[in-house]
Amino acid sequence: MEKQTVEIGITASKETDFSEWYIQTVQKAELADYAPVKGLIVLRPDGYAIWESLQETFNRRFAREGVRNGFLPVLIPESLLGREKEHFAGFNPEVFWVTHSGNSELGDRLALRPTSETLAYTMYSKWVQSWRDLPLKINFWNTALRSEIKATKPFLRTSEFLWQEGHTVHATKEEAERQVHAMLDIYRETVEQELAIPVISGAKSEREKFVGAEYTMAIESIMPDGKALQMGTSHFLAQNFSKPFDVKFADRDNVEHYAWQTSWGVSWRLIGAMIMTHGDDRGMSMPPRVAPVQAVIVPIYRNDKRQRDDVMSAASEVREALESEGVRVHVDDRDDATPGFKFNDWELKGVPLRIEIGPRDVESRSVVAVRRHDGRKESMGVKDLGPAVRGVLEEIQEAMLQKAREKAAGMTFDVSEYAGFKERCGTGFVRAVWCGDEKCEESIKEETGAEIRVIPLGEEKEQGSICIRCGGQGLSTPIFAKGY
Amino acid sequence: MEKQTVEIGITASKETDFSEWYIQTVQKAELADYAPVKGLIVLRPDGYAIWESLQETFNRRFAREGVRNGFLPVLIPESLLGREKEHFAGFNPEVFWVTHSGNSELGDRLALRPTSETLAYTMYSKWVQSWRDLPLKINFWNTALRSEIKATKPFLRTSEFLWQEGHTVHATKEEAERQVHAMLDIYRETVEQELAIPVISGAKSEREKFVGAEYTMAIESIMPDGKALQMGTSHFLAQNFSKPFDVKFADRDNVEHYAWQTSWGVSWRLIGAMIMTHGDDRGMSMPPRVAPVQAVIVPIYRNDKRQRDDVMSAASEVREALESEGVRVHVDDRDDATPGFKFNDWELKGVPLRIEIGPRDVESRSVVAVRRHDGRKESMGVKDLGPAVRGVLEEIQEAMLQKAREKAAGMTFDVSEYAGFKERCGTGFVRAVWCGDEKCEESIKEETGAEIRVIPLGEEKEQGSICIRCGGQGLSTPIFAKGY
Repeated sequence: MEKQTVEIGITASKETDFSEWYIQTVQKAELADYAPVKGLIVLRPDGYAIWESLQETFNRRFAREGVRNGFLPVLIPESLLGREKEHFAGFNPEVFWVTHSGNSELGDRLALRPTSETLAYTMYSKWVQSWRDLPLKINFWNTALRSEIKATKPFLRTSEFLWQEGHTVHATKEEAERQVHAMLDIYRETVEQELAIPVISGAKSEREKFVGAEYTMAIESIMPDGKALQMGTSHFLAQNFSKPFDVKFADRDNVEHYAWQTSWGVSWRLIGAMIMTHGDDRGMSMPPRVAPVQAVIVPIYRNDKRQRDDVMSAASEVREALESEGVRVHVDDRDDATPGFKFNDWELKGVPLRIEIGPRDVESRSVVAVRRHDGRKESMGVKDLGPAVRGVLEEIQEAMLQKAREKAAGMTFDVSEYAGFKERCGTGFVRAVWCGDEKCEESIKEETGAEIRVIPLGEEKEQGSICIRCGGQGLSTPIFAKGY
Repeated sequence: MEKQTVEIGITASKETDFSEWYIQTVQKAELADYAPVKGLIVLRPDGYAIWESLQETFNRRFAREGVRNGFLPVLIPESLLGREKEHFAGFNPEVFWVTHSGNSELGDRLALRPTSETLAYTMYSKWVQSWRDLPLKINFWNTALRSEIKATKPFLRTSEFLWQEGHTVHATKEEAERQVHAMLDIYRETVEQELAIPVISGAKSEREKFVGAEYTMAIESIMPDGKALQMGTSHFLAQNFSKPFDVKFADRDNVEHYAWQTSWGVSWRLIGAMIMTHGDDRGMSMPPRVAPVQAVIVPIYRNDKRQRDDVMSAASEVREALESEGVRVHVDDRDDATPGFKFNDWELKGVPLRIEIGPRDVESRSVVAVRRHDGRKESMGVKDLGPAVRGVLEEIQEAMLQKAREKAAGMTFDVSEYAGFKERCGTGFVRAVWCGDEKCEESIKEETGAEIRVIPLGEEKEQGSICIRCGGQGLSTPIFAKGY
């Protein structure tokens, strides 16, 4: 049994071989696996359950903003894409093209959706006629397809990925801009509260924004390998799409106006970020709020029927107590695995709390609870265990966010000289003054590999300081980093 | 206002122009709309909400069977499809092929998933090694793509459709067969209880079964135009896929065996069936359990601020009372629409219960409740309105199923002569004795357009009766009908 444990555990170190560690964790924790087509992955139930949990929490938050869900097909005719050429040009090299159905060649080629602005707004132009139809706020849970030629990685870079894309239409610019920020707030709040990952938010630079947008807001997180990961974006589209797609409305005065639009999305990258942030050399470590199983009960007994019966009956009692408190709980009643094997197995899968019950615990009406994220062990009484475990899970959630915050803070640097800037690039977020000139931004990217991740709000202007690259007058203090 | 009402209402009769009535209902009730590619549709929020409600109820029922959800990509390499040629041949004329990504031609063409057996079982062969890995039960909520050349129709015949496909693997034949029937039971129960549509269940004939299956079980419903609609299928795959895809497991005795498999699915056709079954000339009529809005409150007042305030405050009170009972409720507080306009609008959308509140109702602490499905009006006291409305919604649900049952019973015919058989075909389900010979089945299809929809269980054998077509000895009594 011990030998098997070694084989199925993680054999790479997060510290020294991050990339291999990540891939092993994804596969051995049974979150995802490679599909037969390069760049595509399959989600196993534990991986998909995290996505379902995110869907549920986002749906609840989106509903508060009056957003409802809809469905769009995956096929977009090439002729439609021509309507907003500038926007679509960016996707051209990545688009999968359907040219045949059965043996027949299609007249108009069909693109697999790399994003749905063109399709959604073709529909919206039919649905929006009057101010009474506004605001229109629809979110779509689907996949986007973008052929990845570079090295692919589960959840982070795949040719098809699960995401949500929200598309709203408003009568006024002000209302649309408020929506852009409201969605960014939802993203920040959800990622921090549910996934226990700290983020920084702000605007993308002109160079890094979504081509079709007037401006793009984003949340970014720093990963343990020093690279930044874009966690979500919210775009102010102004009238850039409403004009070519004819999304117009008659206002109360019966005068026609072009509408104001937004779009925003997050993808299963969030799951990748969660694995990288919280996993360790024993495998995955799940924040309790999104964990498919929050507590696993491991009964411990010798080869003795009466002892087994006593322990199993205590285990059932504990399971019921936790279930009645809404805790997602599982009893590992496998007879052909040792407790040690089970401990390793559930640590690999990242279950936040392990509850051990042995014969002595049965006698003393207690259990031993072990926290996955820091290994802390404590004895807990069976009486009122449900509420107590709920409390422990909340503590774990909070502690995981706190630990991630400290880690991120230690990887965020203020620099004022280009030598120091270069040194820090690739090791974390680097905050530095910029003149606002795209030429400096490009030189920095060329010379260091770092790009502007976001320009935090409230830090757009910094009087008297000078650009890290050219020494000219500073305009803002962006966060630079190498990115995924 | 009256003029507008006429324009936006349904202008075709369900009785005399069923097809046009259906299309108008789908579009004007804002359930779905046509996408820019022929044969593809878009779901608007009210349509998608029904799908979400079905997902929720199926997820709950699937979980009781130990089924969990996963994710599969939409792209399947052509080379993989060759492994189970017979199965895939049936889909060949309908497959969308991706030949290019960007400007590069792909080496191996990629099929858009018409169904996922080949892909799922390629993965399963990696995941299943030992008896410990069984049973494996995963469901996938995704879309399937099958290019439709024939006349397309929203929800019933589209080139991409939302569905779920479940795929299970078992150690024994018996366990797999039990699963096939358990899933069929879930389908029957859910369709009847949630959508208020009666179904008949049974086996498909050899000719009509899923090509890859040993046998196919199905549920079928009869639509008001006399045509049958397949509502769901559950396939016993035996070892037909485990052999070519190498889904093997080492049993407790360490001997390797090929596994036994099942697959099963329902699609958004269920939504089409619901519209056809319950809609009328005023539009959609939703069974309460799946209705996105179960009760709409229409406040009625004259142009008088005090009166308006009184009525609106009573409406809020009623809304809160219903919400606290878990009723999905909406207050139509539009100031620019008359009550009459609102009545028509919500009847078109099919909200099961309308609650009218006027000044006299405020005085008498009551409301007027109007049931969508039969127009019945009743006065209800505001006191304990929440539980009372819940009860009314349950009554409506039950009454809608009852009415649909009666209608279906009136469209189900027993015939023993071929002349009568021919006459009834196209008007409903026709029960007739069959000798079991595929030649008779084919002749019947050719001569009448009807096919065997299902062979109900328990009716496989009927001694002494003779085949409706050839007069030979009867083997079973299938249900024949023309189908969608």
